Amino acid sequence: MSLVVVGSIGLDSIQTPAGKVNEALGGSSVYASIASSYFTSTHIVGVVGDDFPPRDFELLRRHKINLEGLETFPGKTFRWSGIYEDWNHATTISTDLNVFADFSPKLPQSCKCCRSLLLGNIHPALQLEVLDSIQSYDWVACDTMNYWISGWRDQLTEVIKRVDIMFVNEEEIRQYTAHDNIFSAASAILDLGVKLVVIKRGEYGSVAVLKDDIFFAPAYPVREVQDPTGAGDCFAGGFMGYLATQEKLSDLSIRNAIRRGTVMAALNVEAFGVHGIIDREPGTIDSRVKQLEQWT
Amino acid sequence: MSLVVVGSIGLDSIQTPAGKVNEALGGSSVYASIASSYFTSTHIVGVVGDDFPPRDFELLRRHKINLEGLETFPGKTFRWSGIYEDWNHATTISTDLNVFADFSPKLPQSCKCCRSLLLGNIHPALQLEVLDSIQSYDWVACDTMNYWISGWRDQLTEVIKRVDIMFVNEEEIRQYTAHDNIFSAASAILDLGVKLVVIKRGEYGSVAVLKDDIFFAPAYPVREVQDPTGAGDCFAGGFMGYLATQEKLSDLSIRNAIRRGTVMAALNVEAFGVHGIIDREPGTIDSRVKQLEQWT
Repeated sequence: MSLVVVGSIGLDSIQTPAGKVNEALGGSSVYASIASSYFTSTHIVGVVGDDFPPRDFELLRRHKINLEGLETFPGKTFRWSGIYEDWNHATTISTDLNVFADFSPKLPQSCKCCRSLLLGNIHPALQLEVLDSIQSYDWVACDTMNYWISGWRDQLTEVIKRVDIMFVNEEEIRQYTAHDNIFSAASAILDLGVKLVVIKRGEYGSVAVLKDDIFFAPAYPVREVQDPTGAGDCFAGGFMGYLATQEKLSDLSIRNAIRRGTVMAALNVEAFGVHGIIDREPGTIDSRVKQLEQWT
Repeated sequence: MSLVVVGSIGLDSIQTPAGKVNEALGGSSVYASIASSYFTSTHIVGVVGDDFPPRDFELLRRHKINLEGLETFPGKTFRWSGIYEDWNHATTISTDLNVFADFSPKLPQSCKCCRSLLLGNIHPALQLEVLDSIQSYDWVACDTMNYWISGWRDQLTEVIKRVDIMFVNEEEIRQYTAHDNIFSAASAILDLGVKLVVIKRGEYGSVAVLKDDIFFAPAYPVREVQDPTGAGDCFAGGFMGYLATQEKLSDLSIRNAIRRGTVMAALNVEAFGVHGIIDREPGTIDSRVKQLEQWT
């Protein structure tokens, strides 16, 4: 009942209206793995350069994240830098792929016993490589972004056809399906064979759409956002980490999974980089999940 | 346990991306009264000119709305015309106050037995006149809009200090309180003595904020919006109409009231003018309310 997370690992330099941070641990699989680690044993699959800080390896180990799928290549770690002029959109200043340019995800032997897989927000071609290498997973989920939708639409469609769960935000699902109404858009994704579409709506929460059911969840109220980077990854990681412990994709397991994803995303935006989600007491997460239940 | 609704009554000419309508029955108290009429006996207080169409009197009577507070003055009925370039903002083309210019709301004797009052979206000075004239109401609620916040802020503050419940949308509460975070904004309104702030978030639903509780409700999914005019009034009318039948402002009564307001607002936007909310089967409303419960 473990979760495998495949995605990017990088060092991010981020500026927001609340401040800035330099070369902080980031990347889609890092955020998602840490979020997942509170709920299930988690395996990270990705690549770093030989400059990856020992303290960041230590941080992942402290969260009991299995690092057998984390390769170290000679060269520099992936770096991204961006500015948030407003809270919803980052403007990229620079992207240095470095060792990530030659990344070809390989699931180590230890991942063979896992039953859940999260394909983080990376090139659809890499997501397809992983899909080609796996068998007998209970649930496979993918995340994506506008960049892949614009440039690699056909490959992304191949990915979507092969996953059970898709995480997507409102802008992305409208862009991909050309439906303005998000419920019509979700239907179009379900028609491709996906069982569950989870649409992220930022401060307005999320909505899970199945063939014959909908579930709305509010966002956990955040008094002061510091850094939105990784919120979507934390949502997906918390969701999939919880779901990996469940036997069925039921009404109840979906509701519980969404609430956990929601809480992890909220904790994440309250601090820069991964600082909001590391070293948290499970009690903090549980009490926020309970509050969310009471508030609906 | 009846509800009194005070507000505007007019004939609206509306153009939206879905079509247009000419001199259709509208106004804040009309939308709110009809929405309320499905839940409790409702009294409308307002003014029309002697050109007010007999079929519209008939429509209000058919919904068992008490018309003793509906005055007819010599002259023309209030008229408004507007265009929706997008679904969230109407651009006013013309406003002809006509008989509404001399309106001074008077609650007739029959309203003395009512225990709930909704001050629809009208000039705060008129809302204050009504507040000066009433005694011993269980719940008094007000609605407002950006126009009154910009121009009559002090009078609006006097209104807010004297009501139990305030309906407001996200843009308005940010404008009024100068807080960007809606929960901080709601706290500022609660500090004025309001018991419950209901923040309307359009397609994202609504959030009710009390001193020590929050309740989130999603919007009822609408496949195709025709005309958003009156959605906020229907929300407030449905909410207050249901609440008028309840003994306490409890967790449960607030949740139930919000769901009813939500369903009435959704029915309303599915057709032009009041056509979405008139002559509906109670069963249609009940089943949508049940769906909303199941979806959270």
